[in-house]
Amino acid sequence: MKNKKEDSGKSVDEKINKLAKEVLNQIEKNNNPTVDMPLRGITNVYFDEKNKIIQMGNKTSSRSFFNLGQSKKFMQTFLAAKVIQDLIKQNITVPIRSIYYNTKHTIEGTKEETWNDQSESDPIIEDLEVTLDALREELHVRAGSKGAMVGNLTIIDSGDKIDLRKMGSGGWSIPSIVENNIIKFDKCEATYILFIEKDTIWSRFNEDKFWRKNNCIIIHGGGQPPRGVRRLLRRMHDELKLPVYVVVDSDIYGLYIYSVVKQGSINLAFESMRMAVPKARFLGLSSFDFEKYKLPSSVILRLKEVDKKRIKEVMGYPWFKDNKWQKEIKHMLKIGVKLELEALSAKNFKFITEKYVPDKIRNKDYLD
Amino acid sequence: MKNKKEDSGKSVDEKINKLAKEVLNQIEKNNNPTVDMPLRGITNVYFDEKNKIIQMGNKTSSRSFFNLGQSKKFMQTFLAAKVIQDLIKQNITVPIRSIYYNTKHTIEGTKEETWNDQSESDPIIEDLEVTLDALREELHVRAGSKGAMVGNLTIIDSGDKIDLRKMGSGGWSIPSIVENNIIKFDKCEATYILFIEKDTIWSRFNEDKFWRKNNCIIIHGGGQPPRGVRRLLRRMHDELKLPVYVVVDSDIYGLYIYSVVKQGSINLAFESMRMAVPKARFLGLSSFDFEKYKLPSSVILRLKEVDKKRIKEVMGYPWFKDNKWQKEIKHMLKIGVKLELEALSAKNFKFITEKYVPDKIRNKDYLD
Repeated sequence: MKNKKEDSGKSVDEKINKLAKEVLNQIEKNNNPTVDMPLRGITNVYFDEKNKIIQMGNKTSSRSFFNLGQSKKFMQTFLAAKVIQDLIKQNITVPIRSIYYNTKHTIEGTKEETWNDQSESDPIIEDLEVTLDALREELHVRAGSKGAMVGNLTIIDSGDKIDLRKMGSGGWSIPSIVENNIIKFDKCEATYILFIEKDTIWSRFNEDKFWRKNNCIIIHGGGQPPRGVRRLLRRMHDELKLPVYVVVDSDIYGLYIYSVVKQGSINLAFESMRMAVPKARFLGLSSFDFEKYKLPSSVILRLKEVDKKRIKEVMGYPWFKDNKWQKEIKHMLKIGVKLELEALSAKNFKFITEKYVPDKIRNKDYLD
Repeated sequence: MKNKKEDSGKSVDEKINKLAKEVLNQIEKNNNPTVDMPLRGITNVYFDEKNKIIQMGNKTSSRSFFNLGQSKKFMQTFLAAKVIQDLIKQNITVPIRSIYYNTKHTIEGTKEETWNDQSESDPIIEDLEVTLDALREELHVRAGSKGAMVGNLTIIDSGDKIDLRKMGSGGWSIPSIVENNIIKFDKCEATYILFIEKDTIWSRFNEDKFWRKNNCIIIHGGGQPPRGVRRLLRRMHDELKLPVYVVVDSDIYGLYIYSVVKQGSINLAFESMRMAVPKARFLGLSSFDFEKYKLPSSVILRLKEVDKKRIKEVMGYPWFKDNKWQKEIKHMLKIGVKLELEALSAKNFKFITEKYVPDKIRNKDYLD
């Protein structure tokens, strides 16, 4: 990993070759074949105050062939690297589970299998991601896809020009892999991106053609957004220079979804650099909205003890330590209320599209 | 409900007016205002052998205003009917949860709320569906959306012409409401529809442009397909006269997904008539595929006791009583094996798209 910078222009294919050659060199010198890889997990994760994202530290761990505890993992690492190189050569992408099945076999002359189950192969692929400094998507590994997008933007997806202004009620389904060799951005008039937690609420916005009236792009990820949606948000934010506004329920899940979009997650800290949008703006629902918009008390959901416990944990996250965030979260605890996006329907069904969101954006009434 | 046939050409708006007028007439005659509605639930459900779908029986229940146990539900029914008529007039659709919030309020002069929680309002809306003989979608009520579609078909979605041959890697995201006032079918060369259980496998098919080579439409519903996907399958099957082939894991969940696509579910029996595709063909994975395709034993997942118990239940379903189905399911129990679609990757990553599915269709190697 010392050569990380120097490697950054290299293709994944070249990086795998380099990794293999280093090991071959060690063998030729009669050394114990060893791979150094960044240590994943909570002990090597920190919040980068400057860039405002969760980052991996510098700790590494070694994986050697002549080591009883490491030998199998060493071999598994190269088994996975081999099949990934194969995928790149064939130019196909596959689900992570297919890699497990494709490479699973009994080792000749033994009763030992290459993997016992997928919980063994997934972490090895994640190890390769950090070692090769490449996103899973660049390894041609596909995750589940959820979410849809429409708005004042044209994209090129795998060579097909798709006008997101003419995608009807359904929208364009966001694939798992949205790297720039697959998804390119074409004509864009939008001035911002609205990320909406729930698909049913997104449909309300699309039905009202909110994106046309407000010159924006609307996107959802079916709840907690999958990798493809997060990566796409980041790319649009960077490349189209568009601010990202987030609309979620006022509860612990909403806060967590915002947090993942903004800073990344601890589990996938090594990907925050290319997935997170540190400047994402929290539009609402805010814990102050119940009073601000004079919602009827009948729409209130009471926080449970388990909610309160989680909220206190989230309050301690370094990226929520700002006064404005402490005020927001403390108020949620104080009034003991959670509020769903659908609760705005108590005003009327178009309140969220015609009043709530446009007003909040116009008045810069958000947290970031 | 005696006038069901006579009503079938009427709009939902007219049907609601008729329902209201009947009650007004009762009031004017000083009768106890009462609505008769078809009884939902297992006691009024049967398997229609002729049409091969799960159907509702003829049992009805009454809901009266002057009845201590029914009065609240009676009023709730008209509260929901009123807001649905309002949605129809505004020509907007909303999630079922928004209806709950919109109509929830404290009844003047009391401490009584119109609904205590959503588990009260959802069944009332389902009652209206059966009473008005209309799909939830015709009541302008939106469910969650999942799933995507591409292939040799052009559709018109809310006035936008969408060529499903040019939808890149993502595809068209299938909305919750696909009734013919929103989704219309245009040019179609496809000769069949392939329904694939998993989005990641669907992506493999799309990446290989399977639908172009095999002149078909490919569709997934992100696991258990939501209402929009099922309704769309049914409409394409009926209106485009295309056979539907189903590809799922060889396990109890796969069988259940097929079963819901084919016959509908017991909970939503009143919708089978317009949601189910009784002629849907089960392409696989079959419990015989493990031996037929000489898959390595390393890909096997063993059935657990809980799987076996569920499989025996499913074997008893009337629509699986045919010998061919009994043979299929008994064999699954006998070998004690479940098989995921990804297991075909043990052959190679393109085995499923280039060999398995085309061969099965060519050889008519399916169950129905």
